[in-house]
Amino acid sequence: MSFSPLIERLMESLRVLPGVGPKTAQRMAMHRLERDREGSRRLVEVLGEALERVGYCRRCRTLTEEEICRICASGRRDDSLLCVVESPADQLAFEDAGGYRGHYFVLHGHLSPLDGIGPEDIGLDQLEARVAEGGIQEVILATNPTVEGEATAHYISAQLVGQGVTLSRLAYGMPMGGELEYVDGGTLSRAFNGRLPFRGD
Amino acid sequence: MSFSPLIERLMESLRVLPGVGPKTAQRMAMHRLERDREGSRRLVEVLGEALERVGYCRRCRTLTEEEICRICASGRRDDSLLCVVESPADQLAFEDAGGYRGHYFVLHGHLSPLDGIGPEDIGLDQLEARVAEGGIQEVILATNPTVEGEATAHYISAQLVGQGVTLSRLAYGMPMGGELEYVDGGTLSRAFNGRLPFRGD
Repeated sequence: MSFSPLIERLMESLRVLPGVGPKTAQRMAMHRLERDREGSRRLVEVLGEALERVGYCRRCRTLTEEEICRICASGRRDDSLLCVVESPADQLAFEDAGGYRGHYFVLHGHLSPLDGIGPEDIGLDQLEARVAEGGIQEVILATNPTVEGEATAHYISAQLVGQGVTLSRLAYGMPMGGELEYVDGGTLSRAFNGRLPFRGD
Repeated sequence: MSFSPLIERLMESLRVLPGVGPKTAQRMAMHRLERDREGSRRLVEVLGEALERVGYCRRCRTLTEEEICRICASGRRDDSLLCVVESPADQLAFEDAGGYRGHYFVLHGHLSPLDGIGPEDIGLDQLEARVAEGGIQEVILATNPTVEGEATAHYISAQLVGQGVTLSRLAYGMPMGGELEYVDGGTLSRAFNGRLPFRGD
């Protein structure tokens, strides 16, 4: 059945949201029009405004509608630590996990020569300049443990060598609470090879 | 962490969508701003247009941006059958299941005296007038098999008694207390084909 051209278009448009298939899009469209037009109006307004105003922080390149994001502008973060991540979602994961009080630098992707994505496309010139300013003692390369993420980490480490900063990479191993049986072979090998003295305390 | 006020507002706005919790809203907001601004612009545009233009079909009260919906305007539907449903989503479920070629009447709810929802609020005056026009031989009361749906079916049957139409109700085979919208097509078809005379007792 075709409900009507406009409702069909609405269902189709809703499918651009991640994880929304045809059935969910249908339910969402019905729900929008049947029950919560007020909430939908607000969504239209806010999403429109966000698309127009949200850009990159001039200092760390994370998403923000401000010139300089909250974290960069904060006086209560540790200026000696810089964590390089592929996306704002990764940054958010660190913030949600808590514990880290340094700064971030967001690449918005990784090096991918085949797709024509080079160092400038992910802001590596800006990263180099940022480190050259001084004050940073450690750069944590928190790109994804994928082929592209590893390659990007390697490229950055080569770029920053001789700048007098310590470079580090996230530890690999078993996920906390994970079961050995269900961990993939690659992770297991790395966890095994990276084994540490047992303190048993 | 607060990303930025505007991004926080976007996440909050996305939560009006059904089935979207804080974590999904966060993922959606990131995805919108990171990867698919074009798709988001289209969503803003289409959702805005739909909110403005989509109303009720003048004949069957389903959602449509047209004066008269596609099904009511079609010359290829069986004019002697009228299926009364609680929502456009229910109507869509029937159309997706296939097999039914008659018309619909959409209540947009059910009788609920405690919430102040009476017969006129769900268009029962319009339904009565529609049946009084003549031509309809059978009215299928396809409200949900819930307490309110049953009560609404009873009310309608009392209202239409003496109008010379057969009243029927979907066959059970659907789980009691279940909602039509979420029943699979096969069950729905069987329930539809096995519909029984409505006794209203």
